Amino acid sequence: MNPTRIWTAALVVIGDEILSGRTQDKNIAQLAAWLNVQGIRLAEVRVVADDMAAIAEAVTTLDSRNDYVFTTGGIGPTHDDITVDAIAAAFGLAVEVHPQARAILEEYYATRGGLNEARLRMARVPAGAELIENRISGAPGIRLGTIFIMAGVPHIAGQMLDALTGTLEGGLPVRSTTLGCWVAESEVADILRETERTHDGCQIGSYPFFREGRVGANFVVRSTDQTRLDACVAALADALAGAGHQTVPGGV
Amino acid sequence: MNPTRIWTAALVVIGDEILSGRTQDKNIAQLAAWLNVQGIRLAEVRVVADDMAAIAEAVTTLDSRNDYVFTTGGIGPTHDDITVDAIAAAFGLAVEVHPQARAILEEYYATRGGLNEARLRMARVPAGAELIENRISGAPGIRLGTIFIMAGVPHIAGQMLDALTGTLEGGLPVRSTTLGCWVAESEVADILRETERTHDGCQIGSYPFFREGRVGANFVVRSTDQTRLDACVAALADALAGAGHQTVPGGV
Repeated sequence: MNPTRIWTAALVVIGDEILSGRTQDKNIAQLAAWLNVQGIRLAEVRVVADDMAAIAEAVTTLDSRNDYVFTTGGIGPTHDDITVDAIAAAFGLAVEVHPQARAILEEYYATRGGLNEARLRMARVPAGAELIENRISGAPGIRLGTIFIMAGVPHIAGQMLDALTGTLEGGLPVRSTTLGCWVAESEVADILRETERTHDGCQIGSYPFFREGRVGANFVVRSTDQTRLDACVAALADALAGAGHQTVPGGV
Repeated sequence: MNPTRIWTAALVVIGDEILSGRTQDKNIAQLAAWLNVQGIRLAEVRVVADDMAAIAEAVTTLDSRNDYVFTTGGIGPTHDDITVDAIAAAFGLAVEVHPQARAILEEYYATRGGLNEARLRMARVPAGAELIENRISGAPGIRLGTIFIMAGVPHIAGQMLDALTGTLEGGLPVRSTTLGCWVAESEVADILRETERTHDGCQIGSYPFFREGRVGANFVVRSTDQTRLDACVAALADALAGAGHQTVPGGV
């Protein structure tokens, strides 16, 4: 492993339900947290409608500039589930019924009314794709090289990520430490900037809040190097204390 | 107003905190719901890092193919707040201190420690931009033609949307009606597809769930025409009832 190589992933969230405001997306945060542990950085996300051209454009663009692309949504049994067709078309691949997926669905639906035509749609994959296990609802996810096609329902997508844990090559995981402080971030912006500037390989994020009638902020320091991270956090705590602002490890 | 014209908007969510999984985005759903009422469709969303080039690419691309572009995040006082600089650079504009924004911040911070250099950053706008009122925390949002630069904190962004309510030209609002049903969507996929196919101007979304040990789904019918919407909903309820599945108006 090359420790300086940064591995990146992108996510395409597919679904009119997100763009209409009906459903609050939870897959961005879920995937981001999972990727951190794999040593892969979530570099960009797009949310697109249930539209062949929009899905194809997003997936091909993001595939060309990231190590991995994940999609969520649009792999169910209904007419608005077009993710497989859109991705296959985008890469000039046929769509075929995956024999193992068909077998999984036959078994799953044996006691649930049988495998009808709509349900069989969930066994369709771009030619050459592999399956991603789904222990919850039968219908598997799909892996097409570095593209991972997952369910939109967050707990099913989460199961698919579990099945992928440890199977993707990544770099060093991003570590982070949070310092909380009851101060307006605008009072200490210079300290944040200077501390980041003098600590290579560390980024400092500032997340202000207003709570119990007081302003405060959590400062999150991120690095792939624990030693550098610890040094940056210590320097930040010292600088803030020097300006009269005590910090709370772990955040407030 | 041309009732057949569809007005679209895009959203660029800016911030490492979303891509790191630290913060769950709430602005996509909030903006989508607000846009529906304005008769504007949220067509696409991108989430990008605190990176000048990434912000510029997203804003210019989405601006070229939508009526409006909204951004959230990156307009605070700290070093990672670069949205204004990125958008100004993308359009070849200078960044200048807006006199009214400066006056607002001077008043706001008069009793809060005074207007320092970091806080003055929040008065910076791309040349020629107007302000969007922010009743909560002083620092205004920014309107640059059809681009709306808003705060990342959801309740502040919500206040800025309130200030914009009724000021953007749009088309007919999208209306929707939900029917709930304790049925696996895969059992009734044919009914959904046929009902949508035979009702022009209506879209049917299917949102399955697993709850209390049973599967079910909510079917959401959307249209800009109330008469067509009602006819489609009635036809869907009839077709489902004919197949032995009673529906619950409003959803389950």
